[in-house]
Amino acid sequence: MKSLKQTCAKISEHKWFTNIIIILILINAVIVGLETYPNIVRHVGSLLHIIDQFLLWIFTVEIAVRLIGSKTIGAFFKNPWNLFDFVIIAAGHLLAGSYYVTVLRILRVLRVLRAISVIPSLRKMVNALLKTIPSMGTIMLLLGLFFYVYGVIGTMLYQEIAPEYFGTLHQTMLTLFQLITLDSWSSSVMSQIMEHDPTAWWYFISFVVIGAFIIINLFVGVIVNNVGEVYQEEEPSPAEIKLAKVQEELEEIKKLLKEKSN
Amino acid sequence: MKSLKQTCAKISEHKWFTNIIIILILINAVIVGLETYPNIVRHVGSLLHIIDQFLLWIFTVEIAVRLIGSKTIGAFFKNPWNLFDFVIIAAGHLLAGSYYVTVLRILRVLRVLRAISVIPSLRKMVNALLKTIPSMGTIMLLLGLFFYVYGVIGTMLYQEIAPEYFGTLHQTMLTLFQLITLDSWSSSVMSQIMEHDPTAWWYFISFVVIGAFIIINLFVGVIVNNVGEVYQEEEPSPAEIKLAKVQEELEEIKKLLKEKSN
Amino acid sequence: MKSLKQTCAKISEHKWFTNIIIILILINAVIVGLETYPNIVRHVGSLLHIIDQFLLWIFTVEIAVRLIGSKTIGAFFKNPWNLFDFVIIAAGHLLAGSYYVTVLRILRVLRVLRAISVIPSLRKMVNALLKTIPSMGTIMLLLGLFFYVYGVIGTMLYQEIAPEYFGTLHQTMLTLFQLITLDSWSSSVMSQIMEHDPTAWWYFISFVVIGAFIIINLFVGVIVNNVGEVYQEEEPSPAEIKLAKVQEELEEIKKLLKEKSN
Amino acid sequence: MKSLKQTCAKISEHKWFTNIIIILILINAVIVGLETYPNIVRHVGSLLHIIDQFLLWIFTVEIAVRLIGSKTIGAFFKNPWNLFDFVIIAAGHLLAGSYYVTVLRILRVLRVLRAISVIPSLRKMVNALLKTIPSMGTIMLLLGLFFYVYGVIGTMLYQEIAPEYFGTLHQTMLTLFQLITLDSWSSSVMSQIMEHDPTAWWYFISFVVIGAFIIINLFVGVIVNNVGEVYQEEEPSPAEIKLAKVQEELEEIKKLLKEKSN
Repeated sequence: MKSLKQTCAKISEHKWFTNIIIILILINAVIVGLETYPNIVRHVGSLLHIIDQFLLWIFTVEIAVRLIGSKTIGAFFKNPWNLFDFVIIAAGHLLAGSYYVTVLRILRVLRVLRAISVIPSLRKMVNALLKTIPSMGTIMLLLGLFFYVYGVIGTMLYQEIAPEYFGTLHQTMLTLFQLITLDSWSSSVMSQIMEHDPTAWWYFISFVVIGAFIIINLFVGVIVNNVGEVYQEEEPSPAEIKLAKVQEELEEIKKLLKEKSN
Repeated sequence: MKSLKQTCAKISEHKWFTNIIIILILINAVIVGLETYPNIVRHVGSLLHIIDQFLLWIFTVEIAVRLIGSKTIGAFFKNPWNLFDFVIIAAGHLLAGSYYVTVLRILRVLRVLRAISVIPSLRKMVNALLKTIPSMGTIMLLLGLFFYVYGVIGTMLYQEIAPEYFGTLHQTMLTLFQLITLDSWSSSVMSQIMEHDPTAWWYFISFVVIGAFIIINLFVGVIVNNVGEVYQEEEPSPAEIKLAKVQEELEEIKKLLKEKSN
Repeated sequence: MKSLKQTCAKISEHKWFTNIIIILILINAVIVGLETYPNIVRHVGSLLHIIDQFLLWIFTVEIAVRLIGSKTIGAFFKNPWNLFDFVIIAAGHLLAGSYYVTVLRILRVLRVLRAISVIPSLRKMVNALLKTIPSMGTIMLLLGLFFYVYGVIGTMLYQEIAPEYFGTLHQTMLTLFQLITLDSWSSSVMSQIMEHDPTAWWYFISFVVIGAFIIINLFVGVIVNNVGEVYQEEEPSPAEIKLAKVQEELEEIKKLLKEKSN
Repeated sequence: MKSLKQTCAKISEHKWFTNIIIILILINAVIVGLETYPNIVRHVGSLLHIIDQFLLWIFTVEIAVRLIGSKTIGAFFKNPWNLFDFVIIAAGHLLAGSYYVTVLRILRVLRVLRAISVIPSLRKMVNALLKTIPSMGTIMLLLGLFFYVYGVIGTMLYQEIAPEYFGTLHQTMLTLFQLITLDSWSSSVMSQIMEHDPTAWWYFISFVVIGAFIIINLFVGVIVNNVGEVYQEEEPSPAEIKLAKVQEELEEIKKLLKEKSN
């Protein structure tokens, strides 16, 4: 049993193990791409289905090998990427043959995202991206509050004037998201409301100005944070190197002085 | 009287006091959200109204407790957040039963913003955002001047060509705000003017280029300011720590030298 | 004659001189604003005209005072803001009564921009903005080259497909400017071309990607430059202050050593 | 033979050689611009064609001179800008008289880009821009993966609802690019899908939010990189200059101490 564990660990750490998985994920990506063309599915659909099933089983074996090769089962699932791999593949087996064809197909597409968990540089980058999320926590809360207050006021005031934009709180939230991306905010949304309520401009202008202001600060927050992290990982600056030399020389001088005192 | 003051101060500083207020603000938020659905209002409108009245009285008690618990009335109102809380709640009482139903409902929504004054991290962030406003003062003045000059020229030149965009100075200002957000600036505004006046492009292109230029600099100004503040709050850099050690050593050497002289 | 010069210099440096001019520019701004409303012009147009003439003469006296008060005429015109003031006012006199009514009215609006030359903080800021222009010189040249090459190719290929966008080189340039601001670039411009030429996407996607890339770098260039300037104007850092103290102490130690040698 | 090589090297390094080439490229630019006006081509088309042929031959001579003047042929082609010049000119000769009139005309336009290879400041800047591309490699890969997954899911789900946007994988990719530039993403693309599938908002909102998030980080990455490079090229800071003086003084003190010991 122990030798199996060691063999699996060796295999899963081997360079070619990763490379082959990357190639298989690439093939998986090509297949899900081809499956979007109805013509191709009509002619070679069953072939694509067989390859897909085959890939699912290979990925199952891959995860089994990595699971057996890891120190403990707990250690394996502690890494969120391993959990992601496991769930994607397990769901593929559990839902097989079910009626949820769309869910199954989406699962097959999400398997392409396994490239992130397999390619180290991508995994490192996504981890870095995910790390910046909590630092935006408070700003996200503030943005949420801001959206909610404007959402309720907007629904209250313009519900009957423009039901397609402000009909329900849910629709208003989508409209506000459209406003903050500045897509046709004035040319279609505001102009339509202002035909009935000429004072409505304060609602839109204030939302866009305050929203952009919060977004800019969010942006600045992220930049400053990232720049900060970069500086922390940095090598010592030229000034620090020179200071270290100054310290060495001072030690020498002190030694000279003490020698003379004795 | 003094013991009442102390009790109130103790209550208002208690952790659960704040937590309960946050929960009540959340309930308030849900209610104003529900009130935007006409169906819900038709069935349980009177219930929502009772809860809302109940919340208003609890918030009144809360502010009374905090007001009594503070050192002096002046100290309480010196904090703009307390003033904000007081005005929002007081206006709820003063306007009750009046004909200004819309104003009353907007007040009820604005009560959700009390979350900012109650949750410390949000209050801190909004204070930080508000602090960046004065540093943009001059740029805002410049932007205003720029808008006004382009506004008057635009109204003068295109008043009769496109009255829906440049009819009055007020409409032109809104159109210029639309232009600076780049929403359909060319596809609908400029193209319509250029059908009648093919030389109008200089007006639009120059406005967009200069406007974007000022905005970029405003943006940079904010970044540099914020980065500056971040650096000021920062702990001493590695170079400074080393310098402090160098200073200590120099003191030691001086002491050694002086001992020998004596 | 000399005493007149000194009196003028004293007046032009007086605080209230500037304040009165700022107020008059404000009145000028209100008047040009009011003149855009046809109703107001019909009723009090002649009054506005008289005030405007009066302001023009006061501004003339103001510039005369500042011109006489300056050391030499050359020194006065060396400052570009003084030249700007002079040209704006002189043109107001020269073109008076001419047929170029629109030019005269635009001149009256541009007089509002004199606020920049009179208010010191605005003048300082605009000078700072103007200073960043040369540092963008090379990028502007590159952007121009990029626009020209895409302009000629676009006109060549799509002249007959969409004459309203790519009819002449001049029209194509305007369309490319619209593309780079991302206004309806895909929803109206690209979609119309692609109906006739399904391979046209490479032209648009490459233009947007390369254009955005150059713009981002222009942006970064400006940020880095401005940040650099800010750091140069900055007060000595804590590290520098400590270093200055270290240098002082070293001087002291050297003095101690030399005293002992003698 | 050797004297010819030396003469060519001398000529190609001469200031006027570059200046004349820049002027000829400018003339080339004007000609390709004039050729887009059908009226001008009808009247002086043959004249333009002659000048164009003449320019092609002069450019051929120019490259020949620079090729002969360089140390070895290998050294000449090692510089990618020389290769670019050579290919542009050689293709002009090879395709002359062929049926690919459009290709030939595009080649003539691309000759204008030779300005980049000839003007040193432009070449330096483009080299700097090109250098930032590899540092974005991983983010580009991530962006590609993200586009592909959303592309396949979008085609799968909305192929039949909106064939003009999501008909084929290729069309979906173009639509996603439109979405990420925020051009009419909500006002035309999303609104059309949501008429048939009211739950479609999660697809669009998640794409825009995640996409903007990756783009912002790409942006930040570029900024941090460029700022880093700027700091590396920078002159010594005031702190470093002071440190150098401190080191000198320490040397002096050590010398004083040693002299006394001896």
